[in-house]
Amino acid sequence: MGVFGDSYLGQEYAVTPWEVKGKVDYLRLAKEFGVQLLTEDDLNLLKDLTSGDVHYLIRRGFFYAHRGFREILNRAKLGESWALYNGRGPSGDLHVGHLVPWILTKWFVDKFNVQYFFELTDDEKFLVREGYTLEETNRLAYDNALSLIALGFTPDKLHIIVDSDDIKYLYKIAVKVAKKLTLSTVKNTFGFTDSNNIGAAFFPAIEIAVAFLPTELFGKETPVLIPTAIDQDPYFRLARDVAESLNYPKPATLYSKFLPGLTGEDKMSASNPDSALYVNDDEREVRRKIMNAFTGGQPTVELQRRLGGNPDSCPVYKYHMLIDENDEAVKKIYDDCRGGRLLCGECKLMLYDKVKSFLSRHRELRERARDKVNDYRVSVKFK
Amino acid sequence: MGVFGDSYLGQEYAVTPWEVKGKVDYLRLAKEFGVQLLTEDDLNLLKDLTSGDVHYLIRRGFFYAHRGFREILNRAKLGESWALYNGRGPSGDLHVGHLVPWILTKWFVDKFNVQYFFELTDDEKFLVREGYTLEETNRLAYDNALSLIALGFTPDKLHIIVDSDDIKYLYKIAVKVAKKLTLSTVKNTFGFTDSNNIGAAFFPAIEIAVAFLPTELFGKETPVLIPTAIDQDPYFRLARDVAESLNYPKPATLYSKFLPGLTGEDKMSASNPDSALYVNDDEREVRRKIMNAFTGGQPTVELQRRLGGNPDSCPVYKYHMLIDENDEAVKKIYDDCRGGRLLCGECKLMLYDKVKSFLSRHRELRERARDKVNDYRVSVKFK
Repeated sequence: MGVFGDSYLGQEYAVTPWEVKGKVDYLRLAKEFGVQLLTEDDLNLLKDLTSGDVHYLIRRGFFYAHRGFREILNRAKLGESWALYNGRGPSGDLHVGHLVPWILTKWFVDKFNVQYFFELTDDEKFLVREGYTLEETNRLAYDNALSLIALGFTPDKLHIIVDSDDIKYLYKIAVKVAKKLTLSTVKNTFGFTDSNNIGAAFFPAIEIAVAFLPTELFGKETPVLIPTAIDQDPYFRLARDVAESLNYPKPATLYSKFLPGLTGEDKMSASNPDSALYVNDDEREVRRKIMNAFTGGQPTVELQRRLGGNPDSCPVYKYHMLIDENDEAVKKIYDDCRGGRLLCGECKLMLYDKVKSFLSRHRELRERARDKVNDYRVSVKFK
Repeated sequence: MGVFGDSYLGQEYAVTPWEVKGKVDYLRLAKEFGVQLLTEDDLNLLKDLTSGDVHYLIRRGFFYAHRGFREILNRAKLGESWALYNGRGPSGDLHVGHLVPWILTKWFVDKFNVQYFFELTDDEKFLVREGYTLEETNRLAYDNALSLIALGFTPDKLHIIVDSDDIKYLYKIAVKVAKKLTLSTVKNTFGFTDSNNIGAAFFPAIEIAVAFLPTELFGKETPVLIPTAIDQDPYFRLARDVAESLNYPKPATLYSKFLPGLTGEDKMSASNPDSALYVNDDEREVRRKIMNAFTGGQPTVELQRRLGGNPDSCPVYKYHMLIDENDEAVKKIYDDCRGGRLLCGECKLMLYDKVKSFLSRHRELRERARDKVNDYRVSVKFK
């Protein structure tokens, strides 16, 4: 089975390098959450609608499951209104992997010419994390926004919501959502206990409220498509549950797998700074982390030459898959690794070159975005 | 012991007609909540500061307990900043009794030249009450505001907050408050269970946030004094608990007893419309309710003439006490009732005359306020 091929577009395509050797069973996860896997049919429709290749992050199976994605595509086909929504809990350690889903969102914006709402949850980050002041999470929200803007979104399409500053857009919707959610529900869904604070318990209403904001702002039914990691499903399952009773369209979701940790974890660990490449890491640091990364290679050069490596269980290879849109180049890495023609050191240097040039350009674009953040704020565009 | 006299200004003054025959033991209530009773000393200081009579609602023992009232008076004495705060869950059945605490607040505003923040909790009313939409509670908020404005407040002193419209003033403070309050705390304090909704559980943070708003808006320590009914103490005890750790000044409170029900209850019952005089009741209705009111009178005219009535357990007499600022007139009613010279029918007609002229004037002032509501909104004055 090749890495890129028709087999990845079929029912089984979700069985990709991401989980073959991993500890996370993404198929089981999807089944447990009760979400649907993307089918060949879905991808063919997406291909038809975008008249070209499906984005590599979907094609390569990084985004692999969903709720109601097909309904969004059907709306797109009929020219009906829909919008994009996702977001982030602002932090000081934004990493390259965080940008990956936004790259897909950019593709959706460009291909479908839709509005994109992005929520920076400075309130939640403050509420659930010790050691942050609200002023700090708020500052980080605007800092993180720079990286989003740097991906090339224009202010007529991207609308940034910073919860604590833009609460007036969300609160009335959130109050209606909150009335539908008991403490039992959020305890069961998110594992809260009575020792959690009341702000954390209320927060799901805020996050869900954004899903209904486009319908309010545009004055017409505008369901959102939410590209996000699969572990965010509980929020949006609740959102879908309450949508109908509140006369809002159900939000749809498109779920990705987790970002790989360079040190070998299936899901990156915030407590291990070496497992991620931060946007603010300097070149030395990026190089060190990549060169020290865990790989799917053999213990010795000889064995690697003879047996080939295991890209399917290699975080370095996964990074190539996540950030290099050139299918041929990535396929060559896969094949050369398997065939023993590519050693880990070379492969890491190739990744370093890609990350270095991406980050160097990205940091330049971030700086250019600094004066323009205000143009993207929902409060500037919707009064 | 007379109704009005020095005895009411001493330690024992809280033993007033309000509870002599009532089922609510206000002294025990104060003790249970752990609040302080107003002392002669407090009232003497208040008298000194206002160079005149202490307001009749305090003098007559309707407001009788507090937390930290003395600290507010000390600030007043030193010319330091403080403000007033109370509010209301908007409803369609605003009644005359609801206006009583606002009459006292008006006195404080006039005597101390302080700012007054008034919160209309359309969010909470919607969250805790079935059968209301948020749009309805929001509309009622602006309706109820008319009665407040009709009491004579000027826009330079009264600042009205309608939660769902003015949330931007409160949310950042509320999030900080919320982080200090666990689900356990609000469950224990307010009797919430897991079947309550997450909005109701979060709401205490919003109500408490208003107590800290003046300090934020004025950029200097500005504790609030909250004149309210004693059953609101749990909110503000929490507010005082969290204030210190958030570097806000502790709010002070001044607690009243409950409004009497015309049908004989110690506390007016929302489920019995005959127990209250609504602002929107027409004269016929007001007359009917008053004439049908429970009294402290004897079963027959003969017995009343011979034995005298019991004003101490009479809601009609309590209404005279609440709305008639003329001490002599009220004392005469008390004495004439006790002495058998005043029959219940005459006493009720006297009350009807007072209420009728108050309501007629009040409704006129409400109509005049209609065009001016906007001038009172916090959002108009503080950007």
